Amino acid sequence: MASSTSPAPRRRPPTLLIIGGAEDRVGKATVLRRFVRLAGGKRARIVLIPTASSFQDEVVAAYTEVFTRLGAPEPTVVNPQDRLESQDQALVRLLDDATGIFMSGGSQLKLSQRFPGTPLGDALHRAHARGAVIGGTSAGASIMSQFMISMGDEGITPRQRHSQLSAGLGLLQGAIIDQHFAQRSRYGRLMSMVAASPSLIGIGIDEDTAIEVRDQRTFTVHGSGAVFVLDCRAATSDAPDARRGAPLMVSGAVVHSLPAGATFDLSEVRLVDFVEKHPDVAVALASAKA
Amino acid sequence: MASSTSPAPRRRPPTLLIIGGAEDRVGKATVLRRFVRLAGGKRARIVLIPTASSFQDEVVAAYTEVFTRLGAPEPTVVNPQDRLESQDQALVRLLDDATGIFMSGGSQLKLSQRFPGTPLGDALHRAHARGAVIGGTSAGASIMSQFMISMGDEGITPRQRHSQLSAGLGLLQGAIIDQHFAQRSRYGRLMSMVAASPSLIGIGIDEDTAIEVRDQRTFTVHGSGAVFVLDCRAATSDAPDARRGAPLMVSGAVVHSLPAGATFDLSEVRLVDFVEKHPDVAVALASAKA
Repeated sequence: MASSTSPAPRRRPPTLLIIGGAEDRVGKATVLRRFVRLAGGKRARIVLIPTASSFQDEVVAAYTEVFTRLGAPEPTVVNPQDRLESQDQALVRLLDDATGIFMSGGSQLKLSQRFPGTPLGDALHRAHARGAVIGGTSAGASIMSQFMISMGDEGITPRQRHSQLSAGLGLLQGAIIDQHFAQRSRYGRLMSMVAASPSLIGIGIDEDTAIEVRDQRTFTVHGSGAVFVLDCRAATSDAPDARRGAPLMVSGAVVHSLPAGATFDLSEVRLVDFVEKHPDVAVALASAKA
Repeated sequence: MASSTSPAPRRRPPTLLIIGGAEDRVGKATVLRRFVRLAGGKRARIVLIPTASSFQDEVVAAYTEVFTRLGAPEPTVVNPQDRLESQDQALVRLLDDATGIFMSGGSQLKLSQRFPGTPLGDALHRAHARGAVIGGTSAGASIMSQFMISMGDEGITPRQRHSQLSAGLGLLQGAIIDQHFAQRSRYGRLMSMVAASPSLIGIGIDEDTAIEVRDQRTFTVHGSGAVFVLDCRAATSDAPDARRGAPLMVSGAVVHSLPAGATFDLSEVRLVDFVEKHPDVAVALASAKA
């Protein structure tokens, strides 16, 4: 039976698409395709923020090409040159009108100087709250967490004072995000940060891989690599005592490596669903013949 | 009161010194110094097994130099050329008489073809049981576990079928040993092996770093790097389903990174003692001045 009142507009849940860098743009473009879809597809109003990059013209051209090829209208560019310009109300209105906002890679310190605590940063929070998708890759991923890794060394072994935190946007609370995770061997630097701040969950994202975070609570994995979750809430560590450069003792960290198909609950810090996206088809066929 | 009977000879506990490769030989030589001490120092009878190496003369010369410099008599060499020679009773007697046996680096598959299941391999087990220290570095470390990683790819992300197990000596039961761990980024390959065999504990040892295993039960860490313990007993994984090369889902692995000063119980799979060996002296002094 048809209702006599019009249905309430369906609320879009706050959604982040946090990408580990170097996402495929020329092939199946799985991750960016997901961003365009979340932004509304052909009805999307996408704002591109190339501010982190040292090659902003190339970045704008490349993402304009791929977003339009994937069916979205041409994106608008918001690119404050300094913290003063981050108060520009015309730029704020562009963010307030967007259905999707995408932050490119580059240096996350350029982002952290121009967005957190400015009117443009406030607009990003409003956009997130009303359900516009916020996407970011590499530096654009790091800036999303409240505590942002701004620099650090490579390697698996966690070491004392090999990394540095700065203040990010805080679109994702309670976590530290790292990117290019396997490709730049960042396990050690993320573990050292989480061991020193065990109330935070470490999230390390491989290249061409993304987490789609819903309502600050659960994420699903997209793309070709894996996402690491480092949980030191029950771990012991010598972070207060170890000297600079020494390997850290971190005992009892719980680690999850999650490919596409995994759904993870950030509140309970556990895997809640997994659908195999990389089935061993070749072996299954070979077995069927045997 | 003095006893009228002479005291029973103190039993030496079965001891392994398992080294992650590239141990310091020219500086403080912390790890090799420990080996010489465990072997009996100036009263040691050390047998050197250079069989894994492609440069056996150089290996014999280098370890002879360092062992004698550290106070031991010149080592004897046992180096079977094939599985037939591994039955040589003269070589067996050398192992039966040793207080310390050291296996060099190289290819662990050369060791796995000539020691497990041969009279020389049996002699290594007897030596271990009576308390002679068995040391091994790199390939000589890998051969000690029952399940030996014989080859594999680098990287942090665990991937399906990127590694291969062969039968090792089994001097250490219930574990898989990996070496050059951080330096060759072997976190992924060891995690993939342990995820597929969660009854085994993964032990990844950095270069210039060693575990001293007592009575198959506890180990302490020596040297400049860290030792990783990977415990998948409570983890879930898609190891039965993932296709070749795909990133593996491994959720809930417990990971320990342990520098010198850590003592770990392999039966209970937990840290039982930690003494800070890398104190932040510089910072402590600076704080005292402030």
